Amino acid sequence: MIKLYSYYRSSSSYRVRIAMNLKNLDYEIVPVHLLNNGGEQHSPEFVALNPSHKIPVLEHAGKVIGQSVAIIEYLEAIFSETHLYPKAPFERALTRQLCEIINSEIQPLQNLSVLQKLVKDHGFSEEDKVKWVQHWISLGLEAYESIARKTAGEYSVGNEPTVADCFLIPQVYNAHRFKVEMSMFPTIERINKKCLDDPAFIKAHPSNQPDTPA
Amino acid sequence: MIKLYSYYRSSSSYRVRIAMNLKNLDYEIVPVHLLNNGGEQHSPEFVALNPSHKIPVLEHAGKVIGQSVAIIEYLEAIFSETHLYPKAPFERALTRQLCEIINSEIQPLQNLSVLQKLVKDHGFSEEDKVKWVQHWISLGLEAYESIARKTAGEYSVGNEPTVADCFLIPQVYNAHRFKVEMSMFPTIERINKKCLDDPAFIKAHPSNQPDTPA
Repeated sequence: MIKLYSYYRSSSSYRVRIAMNLKNLDYEIVPVHLLNNGGEQHSPEFVALNPSHKIPVLEHAGKVIGQSVAIIEYLEAIFSETHLYPKAPFERALTRQLCEIINSEIQPLQNLSVLQKLVKDHGFSEEDKVKWVQHWISLGLEAYESIARKTAGEYSVGNEPTVADCFLIPQVYNAHRFKVEMSMFPTIERINKKCLDDPAFIKAHPSNQPDTPA
Repeated sequence: MIKLYSYYRSSSSYRVRIAMNLKNLDYEIVPVHLLNNGGEQHSPEFVALNPSHKIPVLEHAGKVIGQSVAIIEYLEAIFSETHLYPKAPFERALTRQLCEIINSEIQPLQNLSVLQKLVKDHGFSEEDKVKWVQHWISLGLEAYESIARKTAGEYSVGNEPTVADCFLIPQVYNAHRFKVEMSMFPTIERINKKCLDDPAFIKAHPSNQPDTPA
């Protein structure tokens, strides 16, 4: 049995949920609440699983893996019936480049621990925080849009979902949450609309998780 | 011929230089100065190569790839004589997890564009900036140390250099630059000492680049 330690609204958990659904895997969600009890990701039991104090964490066949990139690459190697990475090396590289725009250029700057620190230790107001988030999301999506204009068919790379879509859709969810102006990103908006109709993406959505608040 | 758009002191460029040296590749460095002329990464010519306005960028066989993770994975697929990723899926996953601790938990929070914005738009003093950088580097290295204690031999994973070392050594270089207290990270310090004696790492060092200031 596969276990995923996840929080309904965490974009990195959402990525892995999409990937597992696209691969038709059975898995159990173990909810980790990032705000309750001072943050359950900081409990000694959880830190023993991931010393980064971060979700998602995958448990499979007695092994424990953290970091969404590492988890999805592992799932691709182990469960290879449905491929999420193109086969051709250059197309594969562009797909990973798209993932990394989200993974290393946007998400780290707008995740919970960073925003908490900016507010608590650096006096960011709610407005400062929202502007900060909007700035990094807009910059990153601009780069994504520019590449996707060349690589996209119905999805980010060609006409089938890839790992790039697993990263994109959760980031667009956050962009909407933070009211980022999206009119400059027509390719992204079109791909997002397509994915939101797909059962694999619907099942992974923050509103459909066991830990989604009622 | 392989071309790498690089800046001597950029830790992400440094990662790719190490990887190419470990694979014994011939390449040409194209220097991109991140501070001169308002930042050469913002020139129209460069943005046409990478809409993220970021180095490194690889040119190979008429193809252009950005993002160090995507570049090194591509090099691994194309130039497979020397492997930088372990073969076994779980060991491979842990190696990627180590890379991502640097790539998505530390580096994005201490790169030039983020520090410039914190100073310019949010009034960070020099002291605020240094403390901010030290905080994120320490947290990330703590997680890296905790995993490496289990995976390391002479290098981060076993007794041969892997992609994890390509990510670690440039981050330790930055940690020293920002005077991060390193005594809590004995495994990392030991691996760093070992790597700094290796010709592949020496050739990639910021002090040995064509654009290193005299």
